[in-house]
Amino acid sequence: MKRNLINETPNLIGQTVKLSGWVNVRRDHGKIIFIDLRDRTGIIQMVVIPDKLEAYSAAKEIRSEYVIEVEGLVKERPGNQSKDDNLTGRVELEVDKINVISSVEEDLPFDVSKSDLNLPIQTILDNRNLSLRNKKVNDIFKLYSQIIYSYAQVMREHGFLEIKSPKILSAATEGGANFFKIKYFKREAVLAQSPQFYKQAGVGAFERVFEIGPVFRAEPHFTTRHVNEYISLDAEMGFIDNFGDIMNQLEVVMKRIISDVKKNHSSTLAEYGSEFLIPDKFPKIKLTEALEVLKKEYGKEMLGIDIDPEGERLISDWARKTYNSDFVFLTHYPTSVRPFYAMPSADPQYTESFDLIFKGVEIATGGQRIHNYEQLLTSIKKRGMDSKEFESYLEMFKLGMPAHGGWGLGSERIAQKILGLNSVKEAILFPRDVKRLTP
Amino acid sequence: MKRNLINETPNLIGQTVKLSGWVNVRRDHGKIIFIDLRDRTGIIQMVVIPDKLEAYSAAKEIRSEYVIEVEGLVKERPGNQSKDDNLTGRVELEVDKINVISSVEEDLPFDVSKSDLNLPIQTILDNRNLSLRNKKVNDIFKLYSQIIYSYAQVMREHGFLEIKSPKILSAATEGGANFFKIKYFKREAVLAQSPQFYKQAGVGAFERVFEIGPVFRAEPHFTTRHVNEYISLDAEMGFIDNFGDIMNQLEVVMKRIISDVKKNHSSTLAEYGSEFLIPDKFPKIKLTEALEVLKKEYGKEMLGIDIDPEGERLISDWARKTYNSDFVFLTHYPTSVRPFYAMPSADPQYTESFDLIFKGVEIATGGQRIHNYEQLLTSIKKRGMDSKEFESYLEMFKLGMPAHGGWGLGSERIAQKILGLNSVKEAILFPRDVKRLTP
Repeated sequence: MKRNLINETPNLIGQTVKLSGWVNVRRDHGKIIFIDLRDRTGIIQMVVIPDKLEAYSAAKEIRSEYVIEVEGLVKERPGNQSKDDNLTGRVELEVDKINVISSVEEDLPFDVSKSDLNLPIQTILDNRNLSLRNKKVNDIFKLYSQIIYSYAQVMREHGFLEIKSPKILSAATEGGANFFKIKYFKREAVLAQSPQFYKQAGVGAFERVFEIGPVFRAEPHFTTRHVNEYISLDAEMGFIDNFGDIMNQLEVVMKRIISDVKKNHSSTLAEYGSEFLIPDKFPKIKLTEALEVLKKEYGKEMLGIDIDPEGERLISDWARKTYNSDFVFLTHYPTSVRPFYAMPSADPQYTESFDLIFKGVEIATGGQRIHNYEQLLTSIKKRGMDSKEFESYLEMFKLGMPAHGGWGLGSERIAQKILGLNSVKEAILFPRDVKRLTP
Repeated sequence: MKRNLINETPNLIGQTVKLSGWVNVRRDHGKIIFIDLRDRTGIIQMVVIPDKLEAYSAAKEIRSEYVIEVEGLVKERPGNQSKDDNLTGRVELEVDKINVISSVEEDLPFDVSKSDLNLPIQTILDNRNLSLRNKKVNDIFKLYSQIIYSYAQVMREHGFLEIKSPKILSAATEGGANFFKIKYFKREAVLAQSPQFYKQAGVGAFERVFEIGPVFRAEPHFTTRHVNEYISLDAEMGFIDNFGDIMNQLEVVMKRIISDVKKNHSSTLAEYGSEFLIPDKFPKIKLTEALEVLKKEYGKEMLGIDIDPEGERLISDWARKTYNSDFVFLTHYPTSVRPFYAMPSADPQYTESFDLIFKGVEIATGGQRIHNYEQLLTSIKKRGMDSKEFESYLEMFKLGMPAHGGWGLGSERIAQKILGLNSVKEAILFPRDVKRLTP
């Protein structure tokens, strides 16, 4: 007998089917045992009566999270019991046979069938294999999967080629600090902090490229928005007129992600109470102007021309009130806080760069890059860096490069902010931080 | 003026347009200068005449690979000159203006406009930024991009969830050898050789998962089929009846990739002379039987029950002749050459496992895994391994796991074999081997 999925049962009323899955809940009412069976498509109530001797005695022994295979008759659920808030609430299974595939070896630390686990994140992550079986937790990753797929789709539709760049690098590029070191045969190597140089090389060959891949940051952060390994949604585009082209493309991407998530994961959005303010055009504001707003509207003064996480939260709050927008671009960051390859603005104190803030958190950083070899060399020297360390990078600028720029976009932060999760770690299957390397 | 792409020009005859790209070839005929301009969509011939003074003097200075922006009139190409082997061969651009965006700083080591570079792989990789501009080389990565997209699409269509697992692991799992070591803050960690344990965890939460991500192997190989970092197309599926379900799913995947590549990259296949023998059903043959074929048909005897690369080439040749198939599954590898988690067959000397051979090279390894906690513990102990090292892995089997299995599929080897490339490194943008960490 072929297995049916639980979400198919409403169309199989009156038929005998085989279902498989996990025991979500078991309720022993003496004469009748109710078992809620869970598979990847939903949950169905099953009824086991003493007449079915073998099934009934098996049901007596079964506990939560056992993996079972059952055969039975799909029936319409009696009127007063039917739950119309979900599809399979309209049917139940009258069980004929039960086959236990796997039992549970120990007492479970918590009940995954609850609608909300309501546990400290530490407990959720320490018991990741179990917590992932909770529907509300599980749904995070179905939505996450949509985000990376929507990204791949929208980028391809706009002529970007998907590339995969190496994560093992010969030496620290982009500054040198915060790289994880690897022993690579007889040499030392580092893990890539970003695909920056490789996606720029991609522009030289393909004009427009994107990458979905891990980046590694050896930063000893202890915040709700940092991890040491995450999946970055990168892009780089050539033949731009100015860095506004990059922001426009990123806006298209974010609108597409939100729209796909609304279309395909509306029940998850409802489960988390997620709502969005998406304007026709994302507001763009210069960082210096944002700092003035912070001072005037919130009495917050920053040291120097930069913004901290609290400032990002406040400016996001302000954009929400002023522009009806959950998104806001901050532009023209000072040269001093951007890498050597950032394209200077007309006033060379500033750069043609931006951050994108979504619901109070920076989710993307981007900008135009210098594409002229001599200008790049000058920028490296001006910062007291050694151009020899960048020889392999500089090489491509001797070969003819178009005006270009791009972004790095944190995939897990998008999921975090869409669902309003407290920590980005909740949106990562097995997060890595300073203290956590398991499971 | 908005930029037009070169492949749009056949529909813009009689119009003045702006094009941007690289100088593929420049031919100075004295009175007339011809420039072939290349962008990501194609190549167009441009004509510059002395009447257009500024453009003409710019064209005099221009060299191969300069990045330029031009304005001009799209014209039908005179009959006897038109090349109908490509779309843009029917049109040319009469240039009005030329604007040089980037020049080339040095003499180029080779001519990228040739249809075939015909260079040693060492030279191609040492000059990667340049060699990628050659159309035939460039096309490899457009096809590669299709492979990973087709994989994501077909897996999703079959109910698999895309996951991203960590690449930094706390300790050597799966044996211990051939891991790259990382300094992770105050600890030692390793780079993931495969997402094996995490995709199995994915089965416990989502039933069916797939991942597209890098894996790292510290193996000092010097072959045309190995690199130390590659993109693995992984999958793991729960609630299987037997490991035939896994092979069937993988067959669906490979057929889809081949069919998408044929549909969308037929000119690249023609360029490389690629042809395929795809049978209705991929042949499956037991490894022991394959060894007998090798002995009988090719006079090749293996030591013990295992197969080497030459044996894979020969058995592939045999499958091509016998089954009209470029694919062949070898099944039931001995327990001794498979990991501790491999599901034993009825005869416990063998496992419910397979390799998939495509045109002479193993592209995938897979099989059913042990899903019972006690059985897994016994398997670990039987091999003299320490179960404490696998504590975090074993944990999930105490929670109820369905019968499951999956595969790891080498994405770059698929591209290599589809195009008949000598080395897998030709199908990787920036390959990493024992000696190569740059560019």
